[in-house]
Amino acid sequence: MLNQEEISPYSKAKQILNFQFSSIQAELAQLEQIIINEFIPQAGPLTEIIKYILMNGGKRIRPSLALVIGNLSSTSQNNKLSPKHYELAQLTELIHTASLVHDDILDEAISRRGKDSIHVKWDTKISVITGDFLFAQASVKLGKLECNEIVCIYADVLANLCIGELKQAQYRFDIANLNWDNYLEKSFHKTASLFAATTKSAGLLNNQSPEIINDLYNFGKNLGLAFQIIDDLLDFISTEKDLGKPILTDLKQGILTAPVLYALNDSNESIKLNLTNLIQSRFPDGSNNLKEAEKIIKESGAFEKTFNLAKSYIQQANNNLKALPDNEYKKDLFLLGDFILARLI
Amino acid sequence: MLNQEEISPYSKAKQILNFQFSSIQAELAQLEQIIINEFIPQAGPLTEIIKYILMNGGKRIRPSLALVIGNLSSTSQNNKLSPKHYELAQLTELIHTASLVHDDILDEAISRRGKDSIHVKWDTKISVITGDFLFAQASVKLGKLECNEIVCIYADVLANLCIGELKQAQYRFDIANLNWDNYLEKSFHKTASLFAATTKSAGLLNNQSPEIINDLYNFGKNLGLAFQIIDDLLDFISTEKDLGKPILTDLKQGILTAPVLYALNDSNESIKLNLTNLIQSRFPDGSNNLKEAEKIIKESGAFEKTFNLAKSYIQQANNNLKALPDNEYKKDLFLLGDFILARLI
Repeated sequence: MLNQEEISPYSKAKQILNFQFSSIQAELAQLEQIIINEFIPQAGPLTEIIKYILMNGGKRIRPSLALVIGNLSSTSQNNKLSPKHYELAQLTELIHTASLVHDDILDEAISRRGKDSIHVKWDTKISVITGDFLFAQASVKLGKLECNEIVCIYADVLANLCIGELKQAQYRFDIANLNWDNYLEKSFHKTASLFAATTKSAGLLNNQSPEIINDLYNFGKNLGLAFQIIDDLLDFISTEKDLGKPILTDLKQGILTAPVLYALNDSNESIKLNLTNLIQSRFPDGSNNLKEAEKIIKESGAFEKTFNLAKSYIQQANNNLKALPDNEYKKDLFLLGDFILARLI
Repeated sequence: MLNQEEISPYSKAKQILNFQFSSIQAELAQLEQIIINEFIPQAGPLTEIIKYILMNGGKRIRPSLALVIGNLSSTSQNNKLSPKHYELAQLTELIHTASLVHDDILDEAISRRGKDSIHVKWDTKISVITGDFLFAQASVKLGKLECNEIVCIYADVLANLCIGELKQAQYRFDIANLNWDNYLEKSFHKTASLFAATTKSAGLLNNQSPEIINDLYNFGKNLGLAFQIIDDLLDFISTEKDLGKPILTDLKQGILTAPVLYALNDSNESIKLNLTNLIQSRFPDGSNNLKEAEKIIKESGAFEKTFNLAKSYIQQANNNLKALPDNEYKKDLFLLGDFILARLI
């Protein structure tokens, strides 16, 4: 049986958790300066809240992708990143952050990364306007890119984020509609769509060939799917301290993910029926049903299978970079894949 | 003293309330068909809610502006409206509707146009995702226009809508910061910005000259300011039945508008002090302070002055159309000005 130590050995994890995109240290420092000195101060009465949410220890994975891919797919030798890549990096982070703020209302999440959610620390009304403000500022930056294809790509991302949230709400505790197609589609909508938009757009800003653009899109999509699958696994195998929020939150809310799918698909009829009944009980307070369901899922071997599924998406993502030059940027993207598989938070 | 009958004589109002943009009856019918047959059905699990909010008897003033101005500023003789004008009309209505849904959460409004608000009929979470969905679909339509200038214009509108709401919240009961600059700026952010975006963009889609584009922008801005000023007046002089929500809602919440500004600016010190004290009491439940404040404002002559302010913006708006041809479309826009001044709801 694979346990947390085996999936994410602490020695490796600690090393990888310190992972920074070493190829873009200067660019990332510049991005932070732009966020701190330019973006946050113009948030008016929302300054304190925007600072709280934008500076809460997020790893800036999505904006980093814009900057790394911007470098990797550059066709010029000098001055590889254009100012537009920084706008792209920012707008990606803003959309991600806005969606977190609104999702926390929808999911009634009380904490994120170990800190109170905005709607808990302030209130729901502040959360609504803060999310809207971030979406609006992302739109302003989208206009600055002067590229209609990217406008369309990110408009689709906004639509996908909504569809992902709606599907998640619609299919809570719904075992009848739980299948790989629905799960992967929802994971694309919720997560991989924004990853893919970022990596594709970073290439578009470099006027890359359609083939490379397609590779970059698929790289982002596969990376994003792996990210979401690991996220879903962490709901089971992480700790509240590492996760910054209670574990089994998804399962308790009836959000059925890869581990549940594997456990239901690969178990015998008796175990399958037992797990189905536990899920359909909707885990009433005071009952032990949640813990029992977790035990069945764990013992089915679903955690290893889920981890391997994520791993296969990382491998596909890495393959998508074949046509791009082997350099420090590509190396960082491979390391990012390792980080996603090893992360604990 | 001017009363409601004088400002909006019922005989005239009834006639004008039946006002339809007669020059674009066919286009409006087509727009309704697109909304009913194409837009609403693709809202998935939100279909019922989106239908409720999009088909709630709104007058479609903003999308109508896109269609009328699209015709008025057309440089071709046949087939005056392009499919893009219909996209513009829709996205304008979607942004307007999305902002209403989120504003109703912020303002704790329990009803709109005589019907329950979404967050009352459903809940706040549904309101958040419904607004986000409408904003996202508006972005998708924005991309379809393939015009970066319009993307930037509407991105600014989204930012302005947030700024308007924030300023309104920030300055509640704040007499020290109540002045014409702040009031008109807030009215621009909340309302006129979207009107101006629509009229300008309708001209941009026709590749009109910079002079005409500027005229169209100012037309929309002045019309929007008049619209907001009348909206603020109706909070005092309308009835709950006509307004579809309780009167004096703004005043009770400390949203200080043109009538309050006139009453404070043009009254003697004793009356001014009295009104200031009443406002600063924040109208506690059980007190008569709200009614007393209303009486002072009414007796100061502020309603007539507010009405005349709106009228002057309509006159400016009409002047902005001078360079455009005199035809049925322009006639409808003049009638719209009359309607805005005469409307009771």
